[in-house]
Amino acid sequence: MRPRVYLAGPEVFLPGAAAVLTKKRAVCERYGLVGVSGLDPRSDEPAAWARLHEWQRLYLRNEAHIRDCAALIANLTPFRGPSADPGTVYELGFMRALGRPVLGYSATATPFFERTVAALGLSASATSTLDGEGMLIEQFGLIDNLMIEGGIAAAGGVLLTADQPAAGRWTDLGLFERCVMELARVLAARAKR
Amino acid sequence: MRPRVYLAGPEVFLPGAAAVLTKKRAVCERYGLVGVSGLDPRSDEPAAWARLHEWQRLYLRNEAHIRDCAALIANLTPFRGPSADPGTVYELGFMRALGRPVLGYSATATPFFERTVAALGLSASATSTLDGEGMLIEQFGLIDNLMIEGGIAAAGGVLLTADQPAAGRWTDLGLFERCVMELARVLAARAKR
Repeated sequence: MRPRVYLAGPEVFLPGAAAVLTKKRAVCERYGLVGVSGLDPRSDEPAAWARLHEWQRLYLRNEAHIRDCAALIANLTPFRGPSADPGTVYELGFMRALGRPVLGYSATATPFFERTVAALGLSASATSTLDGEGMLIEQFGLIDNLMIEGGIAAAGGVLLTADQPAAGRWTDLGLFERCVMELARVLAARAKR
Repeated sequence: MRPRVYLAGPEVFLPGAAAVLTKKRAVCERYGLVGVSGLDPRSDEPAAWARLHEWQRLYLRNEAHIRDCAALIANLTPFRGPSADPGTVYELGFMRALGRPVLGYSATATPFFERTVAALGLSASATSTLDGEGMLIEQFGLIDNLMIEGGIAAAGGVLLTADQPAAGRWTDLGLFERCVMELARVLAARAKR
């Protein structure tokens, strides 16, 4: 059976989410993997879920999908602020706790510190690492909070970044494909052991 | 042995982080729990960690602490944007995947939708649920992305909110104490089963 990979990312909020996820699945397919997204229904949803709020059903569906997947690839492009989409970050932590490979990519290569300083409207030449509330701004040269890059590193994954134009940054699949390629290599190596 | 609870939240970025965490530990202590934070050193850190980058050591330490704890309480107060601190969100997802209780609190009761609309500078009377990139803004009446509240609900935890003044919102421990009280009740009930 081909390994399943959970496709985490805020593309689910795009009006054309289904089309983007169909393309992501096609990329996975080319590398022998099955792409799974939170938008995919499940055949095994308990009847009791029908009585839950929509957001609870969506949550339980996503969680069940993650548990059923062999790995996760996260779109960590900054979303409405200096950090990645929190739903995606939650899913990344969840999959890392299961001990399976997690990989990520981002459509910006600008470090987290610089992006945070800009988002907070602090001086672009700021060398201080404190925000307006006197709270420390992480300055490790990473692309987001250290837990994100730390989790990917601990899982042996990769985190790929490249500056992409704002237009099309949610639909360009170049970095995603490189993650899929790397994941296929990792899973093949594990299968041989 | 008293149950250990991981104290997740962006207070670690405060200049007075150690003092706040000491107070949180004292609250835990009053309810028979041991509070553990990412700032706490571990006696079992492998010698090999000394060769890693600081951010990798911090990550591995936090992860080891979470695995050693029986539950997690997250400070989900919005941090530098409409959502919670991403490191905290990662840790919440991680602990939920381990199947242990997760609870949270936030110093604002304003729903995520309203906060996102305000942060993006959209019209305060906006009824549209799309942002400037045409991407959907969640409108479930929740306090953050549905994965956050969904995970807490699935774990049987509580998510407490109250509007608190900006000054002191990182140091007021009223909501935190109510989470600790609830967690102590949950863990005691489980111990009896």
